[in-house]
Amino acid sequence: MTRISFDEMKATIKLAFTNAGMPEEKADICARIHTESSRDGVYSHGLNRVERFVDYLGKGWVDGNAEPTIELNLGSMEIYNGNQGPGITNAIFAMNRAIANAELNGLGLVSLNNTTHWMRGGAYGWQAAEKGFIGICWTNTESCMPAWGAKSGGIGNNPFIMAVPRKEGHIVLDMAMSQYSYGKLQVTRLKDQKLPFPGGFDQEGNLTDEPGAIEETRRILPMGFWKGSGFAVMLDLISALLSGGLTTAGIDKAGKGGCGSCCQIFIAINPLKINTQEFIDQAISETIQQLKSSVPAEENGKIYYPGEQSLKTRHENMELGIPVDDGIWANVKELANLT
Amino acid sequence: MTRISFDEMKATIKLAFTNAGMPEEKADICARIHTESSRDGVYSHGLNRVERFVDYLGKGWVDGNAEPTIELNLGSMEIYNGNQGPGITNAIFAMNRAIANAELNGLGLVSLNNTTHWMRGGAYGWQAAEKGFIGICWTNTESCMPAWGAKSGGIGNNPFIMAVPRKEGHIVLDMAMSQYSYGKLQVTRLKDQKLPFPGGFDQEGNLTDEPGAIEETRRILPMGFWKGSGFAVMLDLISALLSGGLTTAGIDKAGKGGCGSCCQIFIAINPLKINTQEFIDQAISETIQQLKSSVPAEENGKIYYPGEQSLKTRHENMELGIPVDDGIWANVKELANLT
Repeated sequence: MTRISFDEMKATIKLAFTNAGMPEEKADICARIHTESSRDGVYSHGLNRVERFVDYLGKGWVDGNAEPTIELNLGSMEIYNGNQGPGITNAIFAMNRAIANAELNGLGLVSLNNTTHWMRGGAYGWQAAEKGFIGICWTNTESCMPAWGAKSGGIGNNPFIMAVPRKEGHIVLDMAMSQYSYGKLQVTRLKDQKLPFPGGFDQEGNLTDEPGAIEETRRILPMGFWKGSGFAVMLDLISALLSGGLTTAGIDKAGKGGCGSCCQIFIAINPLKINTQEFIDQAISETIQQLKSSVPAEENGKIYYPGEQSLKTRHENMELGIPVDDGIWANVKELANLT
Repeated sequence: MTRISFDEMKATIKLAFTNAGMPEEKADICARIHTESSRDGVYSHGLNRVERFVDYLGKGWVDGNAEPTIELNLGSMEIYNGNQGPGITNAIFAMNRAIANAELNGLGLVSLNNTTHWMRGGAYGWQAAEKGFIGICWTNTESCMPAWGAKSGGIGNNPFIMAVPRKEGHIVLDMAMSQYSYGKLQVTRLKDQKLPFPGGFDQEGNLTDEPGAIEETRRILPMGFWKGSGFAVMLDLISALLSGGLTTAGIDKAGKGGCGSCCQIFIAINPLKINTQEFIDQAISETIQQLKSSVPAEENGKIYYPGEQSLKTRHENMELGIPVDDGIWANVKELANLT
């Protein structure tokens, strides 16, 4: 396995993006987020996603030059048109606006319509937490998962993120609505392994832990069965209603490809408008302590708080370099004209 | 099975509450919510919960006379002390305040600290939707579920609710963080049945669909395994930080019993501040239509939107009467001095 330094990966991805026509400032931001995703172990939305994003720029599915424009300002709540710009720069802008409102008023909610795939949703939770804010955000997507009780796709696998800032390491939940991603199915199949738990249905309609069987039916399992299915529907509806944008059904009909014209919600809250730092530290530390002092299910097992393992991977990858698939790395270098 | 009319059930529960020392107005509201919960099929938090609530009033775990008092007003965000008052009246008050703020500004967030069990969380989602608002709310609880990777309890089974108003029937998701409630385990065991899907761990640490085995270990399964576990931690932390109240760990330490001193968050959004009614209707109807036109997994199977089955049960129970357990109904009548 090859490992690449953060700086080399970021510079290479940035060149790939500027070569594809993105202005430098935006290419720099997008390259940073893709690299940070790989650095934190979210390989599917990091380096591995660069080629597809460049393809989308080429097809015009993403407008590399577009900026969000304001459509409605209600004080604590603002609505922007993403103008089909890069999902990453739009999302960073929106979370920054939410943070600015929360700085003033305690609470800020910013919604985006007509934006594009934001890559790793957790990035915007980390963004809020880095600035000392509680962050909540989610996106809708095109349909890619059957609703509970259905065998054909109809709902989005809409990621939902919650983040709480903490000196010793932010607490960040970043979860999609399916139990496993297609990326996880593929990786597991290529290793000739089974999933840790059933992750979807086979041709006979039985739950299975065989990744290949699920890839064939495309019947991935919503997390918690009916719960994740219902949650996906609510996230979709609320993101469209709060932004004036397209629902999953609307995105499917518009057919712009690659989640084009999706909607996103960004909420930031300033905990220091409500409590002292001492109160906040105490509430968080007693919670982490209670988690950590649970009796592990397995001997010598560990109980992690949300985001803890990302941070562990981050430290490891910053020290040793970020692991890459050699083929993918070669392709991205080619896009960067570095071969 | 005996069926009781809504009005008779509500009047009886109200008498049980006034006999226990609650002022009439609060007893009326609480009786309505308990009755509506049973009417909608959430029997565990309806009539079946009346005796326990009366017990809590008697023990002083709930102050039947207390009103919420404001602690902080940040405009779109308000924080109240629930003063250990009835969870139901406190929650209704808080959601109404959130709605009033949303009426003005589009968005309202109200948090409660030092409140008590709100019974059926979905009630406050329905409340917002009835008034035409999008509602989001959640509560923390004492610890009653092992975190992912643990076999001892450490996290709350914190319910999370999202509601979207719709003329033909509101869309309401009301989900706890465990795959099944202890109530569901008990009911399934008493029928000598298995759970539809594994719902927890047995003594050997294996996932099982035997409800009795899970009741023994008390290792109920978080929905989506690590996902529901992480979500529970975030809901807990954010509710405490936004309200200045106790975390799950803090509630455990305070030991007030019955979720006393828990925290709750209520968010209301006025969709008409953002879009026209026509836009809203279209977004919702295309989403429901896409759900309903999915290919069912089972022949003649149906795909439901969140809240649809509650509404079906509601119509049935309003027509035929609300089914009751004869023993429980006799006990509540006794508390009402009606025997």
